[in-house]
Amino acid sequence: MTDAIAITRAFRAEPGGPQDLFYSASNKVPLPIIERAEGIWLIGEDGKRYIDVSSGPVVSNVGHGRAEIADRMARQARTMDFAYSRTSRHRPNMELTARLAALAGPGYERVTLSSGGSEAMESAIKFLRTYALAKGMKAKRTIISCRPSYHGGTIGTLSITGDDAYANFLDGFSVPSVKIPAPVTYRVPGNRNAEEYAGDCVQALEDAIVAAGPENILCFVFEPVGGLSTGCNVAPDAFFRGVHAVCHKYGIWIVHDEILCGSGRTGKFLASHHYPDALPDIVVLAKGLGAGYAPLAATLMPAAMVDELAELTGFNVSHTYSANPVCCAVGLAVLDIYEREGLVEKAATMGAYLKGRLADLQQRLPMIGDIRGRGMLMALEFVADPATKTSFPPEADVIDKVRMLGLDHGLMIYARRTAGGKNGDWIMVSPPMCITEAECDDLVARLEATLKAFLATL
Amino acid sequence: MTDAIAITRAFRAEPGGPQDLFYSASNKVPLPIIERAEGIWLIGEDGKRYIDVSSGPVVSNVGHGRAEIADRMARQARTMDFAYSRTSRHRPNMELTARLAALAGPGYERVTLSSGGSEAMESAIKFLRTYALAKGMKAKRTIISCRPSYHGGTIGTLSITGDDAYANFLDGFSVPSVKIPAPVTYRVPGNRNAEEYAGDCVQALEDAIVAAGPENILCFVFEPVGGLSTGCNVAPDAFFRGVHAVCHKYGIWIVHDEILCGSGRTGKFLASHHYPDALPDIVVLAKGLGAGYAPLAATLMPAAMVDELAELTGFNVSHTYSANPVCCAVGLAVLDIYEREGLVEKAATMGAYLKGRLADLQQRLPMIGDIRGRGMLMALEFVADPATKTSFPPEADVIDKVRMLGLDHGLMIYARRTAGGKNGDWIMVSPPMCITEAECDDLVARLEATLKAFLATL
Repeated sequence: MTDAIAITRAFRAEPGGPQDLFYSASNKVPLPIIERAEGIWLIGEDGKRYIDVSSGPVVSNVGHGRAEIADRMARQARTMDFAYSRTSRHRPNMELTARLAALAGPGYERVTLSSGGSEAMESAIKFLRTYALAKGMKAKRTIISCRPSYHGGTIGTLSITGDDAYANFLDGFSVPSVKIPAPVTYRVPGNRNAEEYAGDCVQALEDAIVAAGPENILCFVFEPVGGLSTGCNVAPDAFFRGVHAVCHKYGIWIVHDEILCGSGRTGKFLASHHYPDALPDIVVLAKGLGAGYAPLAATLMPAAMVDELAELTGFNVSHTYSANPVCCAVGLAVLDIYEREGLVEKAATMGAYLKGRLADLQQRLPMIGDIRGRGMLMALEFVADPATKTSFPPEADVIDKVRMLGLDHGLMIYARRTAGGKNGDWIMVSPPMCITEAECDDLVARLEATLKAFLATL
Repeated sequence: MTDAIAITRAFRAEPGGPQDLFYSASNKVPLPIIERAEGIWLIGEDGKRYIDVSSGPVVSNVGHGRAEIADRMARQARTMDFAYSRTSRHRPNMELTARLAALAGPGYERVTLSSGGSEAMESAIKFLRTYALAKGMKAKRTIISCRPSYHGGTIGTLSITGDDAYANFLDGFSVPSVKIPAPVTYRVPGNRNAEEYAGDCVQALEDAIVAAGPENILCFVFEPVGGLSTGCNVAPDAFFRGVHAVCHKYGIWIVHDEILCGSGRTGKFLASHHYPDALPDIVVLAKGLGAGYAPLAATLMPAAMVDELAELTGFNVSHTYSANPVCCAVGLAVLDIYEREGLVEKAATMGAYLKGRLADLQQRLPMIGDIRGRGMLMALEFVADPATKTSFPPEADVIDKVRMLGLDHGLMIYARRTAGGKNGDWIMVSPPMCITEAECDDLVARLEATLKAFLATL
């Protein structure tokens, strides 16, 4: 029995238990108990300090221990903790949605709030289905998404997630979605280059629409920068233009899943803003919007559709905590920090700096096969041979070893080996957007030591 | 154009907009802008005060403006705002789950946290489906629930909700669940009394299991006290015993949806505790757990199942904000208030007092056809004729008028006319559990004035 399992067992003897207990068959790495957090640092009960390399699951965008967010949420809770959105209104809701709509720009004048990415993605889908019904397009049900992809953890969002690990779980348990290949840029199948393959993926989308009948297709859901399924894959620009053209040709709505990559991470407020000629109909934001301080997500929609549906039937699905005052106050405080510290611009400039340092590291450590992503949202893919892009063998246990050795070197690393490593082995490098140059250097130095320690185990 | 619609339109001109804009076809009543809240009171920007008759959507269990909750969440946010449950652990998570497990008692030793009732109900369902797969019971997919019922707003939980309003939306969009009649006690069909009808419903459950084949049935999901679908229906005790016997006979898991009725509302910490001989396998809590201050929900499960699955495959579905430190801190502060002020006991005793005052009111106002519920969780059903239980005609618009006249009399009333009034017209009476006798008297006096004003409109 390893120490890690012994620790897990010891916790299990107690009623309750930490959340990770539920995932335990996949938890090989001991999990430090974190007691304090400040800036880019997480600090354990034993005083050990870790750089939050990935901002948790790409959530802690403004860094840790922000007193002004704590103060704002407490002030809101003391003044007016809750007012229900079906029987009343309140200013924090109206102010936050107005600011988000302004940041998102034309086409995203309406904002519905919820408590997480899955809820917000479900809102997008449910809204489109309700709108289609209200407009007499009753057959519009089928959703197209990519394989691999990740769109959330509810049954509805897992069913559009492209991950074979859920196949048995979902079989007969949810309505299947249609999948097209994701426009990957590193492990491109079939002797195609990334541009050619992106074209193939667009063609696959059109073929899928024609095969199912456009009158049956509700929407195409896509991550502008991939998350935990592709490790920050960024499709070639032509993919976005192609998708836009195809979807407009056949009357299919486009939903961009910016749960992970939105809220400034890529150097623009929306990742979609990188593609002004291929904007989606709906954008879903979460994670960084509440920046880890409070569950908060947003679904951005066009006034034209929302106001029309409001007159027709309304969109009568909500949650108790949709647009609750305390979470809205957190969202407003986060946006204040974004604006005062220029964090969106910093994600671009400091992201470029960090990417440069990682590229230097790649020269010294060829096990870094690929550095991809956009702004302060990157992934490093590890390979045994960069020329052939051959992955490490399973027994090298690269992901778990790098995570564990990272802890020894003061790095909290997040990586989720999806599809059993079929899509490569990689870690997220997406520290809080307030990171400094000196801290980037520190991160890269610790990462170099970690990877060298891993190579020494081989 | 009514004033209410004019107000809605005015807001629509601005980017963003309040959350209720999305539901607007069903929003006939003007919605006050709430600025402050304290105890049982909501206070508008214009200074007008409203008793929070229903605790919003039965969420504000400890009342408004609790400085100690605000202080605790701010302290947590300042000290350690976020640590991800897949890469680390933290004490607020472990302390909250331990306390919930202790309050829930044997059979509920494991607690997984999430950000709302829908997520927590999905966790229950996903856990059972994953457990069934891991144990080789691959055909266990179908969920049985009641009609009417309400189990959440995600696609997965809407598909087990018994409400015909969603039929077109869900058709072909989700996997259908099997429905049995809810054991209603007021409008009992077919010349049966409530006890007889509860027996019929148990028989319907057994018939449904046999018809589909028990090997295909995953679980039976039930609200021990009905929420917005039945208006606080409490099934006869025999129903719980009958369901327990049938489900154990065929190997079907029981899930109690205590999203609304749990967390002490009924005078015991779990509503299920009223039925010690018919405890469910899983209990879902939400709403009152975070008491409106933070999105927080819990799924209570037996260690025997969770620890076994942890060894087999683990339960590898989670959300970013599952068990986040700030929401856990709020949960701990809420439980402190519960314990110090004896709020669970108070829900029983003050609930009985309020029910007595409402019964007195019923003597004076026979339009109150039924007072039902348990503890500090009640609904009043309105009828034109109590002898025949005839509802008011649609043109009387009883629900919207009572809500609107309630505002004039300083009451914030929540009611949702489900199934187009087919299940009766009623309002929730479920004020914060810290309400005093004098405040109960005030609430009832204002309600009397409101109902008399309604009767004057006929």
